[in-house]
Amino acid sequence: MKPIGVFDSGVGGLTVVKELIRQLPFEDIVYFGDTARVPYGIKSKETIIRFSIENILFLLRHKVKFICVACNTASSVALPIIKSHFKVPIVGVIAPGVREAVYATQNKRIGVIGTSSTIRSRNYENQIKELNPQVKVIASACPLFVPFVEEGWFGGKVVLEVAKTYLKPLKKAGVDTVILGCTHYPLLKPVIKEVLGKKVKLIDSAQQVAIEVKEILTGLNLLNKGHSSRHKFYVSDNPEWFSRLAKRFLGRPVPKATMVDNV
Amino acid sequence: MKPIGVFDSGVGGLTVVKELIRQLPFEDIVYFGDTARVPYGIKSKETIIRFSIENILFLLRHKVKFICVACNTASSVALPIIKSHFKVPIVGVIAPGVREAVYATQNKRIGVIGTSSTIRSRNYENQIKELNPQVKVIASACPLFVPFVEEGWFGGKVVLEVAKTYLKPLKKAGVDTVILGCTHYPLLKPVIKEVLGKKVKLIDSAQQVAIEVKEILTGLNLLNKGHSSRHKFYVSDNPEWFSRLAKRFLGRPVPKATMVDNV
Repeated sequence: MKPIGVFDSGVGGLTVVKELIRQLPFEDIVYFGDTARVPYGIKSKETIIRFSIENILFLLRHKVKFICVACNTASSVALPIIKSHFKVPIVGVIAPGVREAVYATQNKRIGVIGTSSTIRSRNYENQIKELNPQVKVIASACPLFVPFVEEGWFGGKVVLEVAKTYLKPLKKAGVDTVILGCTHYPLLKPVIKEVLGKKVKLIDSAQQVAIEVKEILTGLNLLNKGHSSRHKFYVSDNPEWFSRLAKRFLGRPVPKATMVDNV
Repeated sequence: MKPIGVFDSGVGGLTVVKELIRQLPFEDIVYFGDTARVPYGIKSKETIIRFSIENILFLLRHKVKFICVACNTASSVALPIIKSHFKVPIVGVIAPGVREAVYATQNKRIGVIGTSSTIRSRNYENQIKELNPQVKVIASACPLFVPFVEEGWFGGKVVLEVAKTYLKPLKKAGVDTVILGCTHYPLLKPVIKEVLGKKVKLIDSAQQVAIEVKEILTGLNLLNKGHSSRHKFYVSDNPEWFSRLAKRFLGRPVPKATMVDNV
């Protein structure tokens, strides 16, 4: 009957929460968004690991039975370390997206877009190669996409122009599948589709992550049944800004988030 | 003989350090850039105050005789509180820029650009009105300017297009003077000039801040004389990234910054 813990650097992880709620309607969820230190994507490995550990300790204080790292940057950079530290089962958002992309590609050319830290970690690339060494991976960092989304710029001339610049190497390489390696990017799908063309499949890992969470909880016999669920949202800063943006990520109104100091 | 302490959310405050070194060549400087929690401009008043206090405590551990808040967001939002808390003399970057702008304007129309938090605080507006209630102030938040500068986008089609959007109300109001209310913005001067026209005077407060620091230190009889100066740089994350960008802000190579945990 314990809740599932989910953390992200800010608001993006709510795309994962949305899928968790849809696929696991009887689960309680405790969400933590580290809005005081957002964004993670421009920060170093050491710092992202430290922040992730602090977020996990916060969730553990809420007696979570399971933790989902709903942040691609933290999943890319910190997952092996934090999995080795904690007893609680932890999943990230990289592996599920990788599996879907490797399954989906026809021409064995997969594009990966993400924050600077995610791309620098080469984690997506390594995991794809592990599943299928024949796949060619073309990765591109899109550091301005997060500020665009957080400012509410989801389209228009400027965003399109920046998307063209970032996606050029993927287009040139003729990828048929692209992993949206950041939880903010699904909100830019229309622009990304406009640049890459309709035939390119965009992989948004949230759905796959929820499937994986369900499988693991079932395997561990930790799944709730027939229980009316509660969802609690905590942030380290700016609860009003969070709630305003949250609606867009979650696809429905969010109860007011509680501001906490997680460290 | 004690050093001057300077802090900023990241690398922008080095534009102030550059002027301090030029105008106060005999002073030691300890700089702290809070790169683990950058940017401040999207965060709440309470959080910016908390971060500023932690940064000051860090500088006090380095026995500084004087503190310069080289961050417009922290100066706008936190200065009155931190000045009331600490004995060490503290100056921010708002008042010097305000004085210069009010002195410079001919048509009594001043534009102010800054981060969302800076503009929301209305601090510039209030201080300008205090000096001269007849001045009309047109303020505009430019939240994408910081990511542009930090990604090394100093010009080009996209930056120009965004600048046109942000600066439209200033242009429409016919301002003859614009305060660059963020230490990152001087690096976008060419684009801002292109949009506003050459006749509009851009106020970059760094120079005025250094003049004020010199005046205060002289008044307090704390000025160093004939002493070869040392400049030390500390960051809470990413010393390599900091040093790479620092060169551009400081106009000369920066000795490697030391990574520290300031809290």
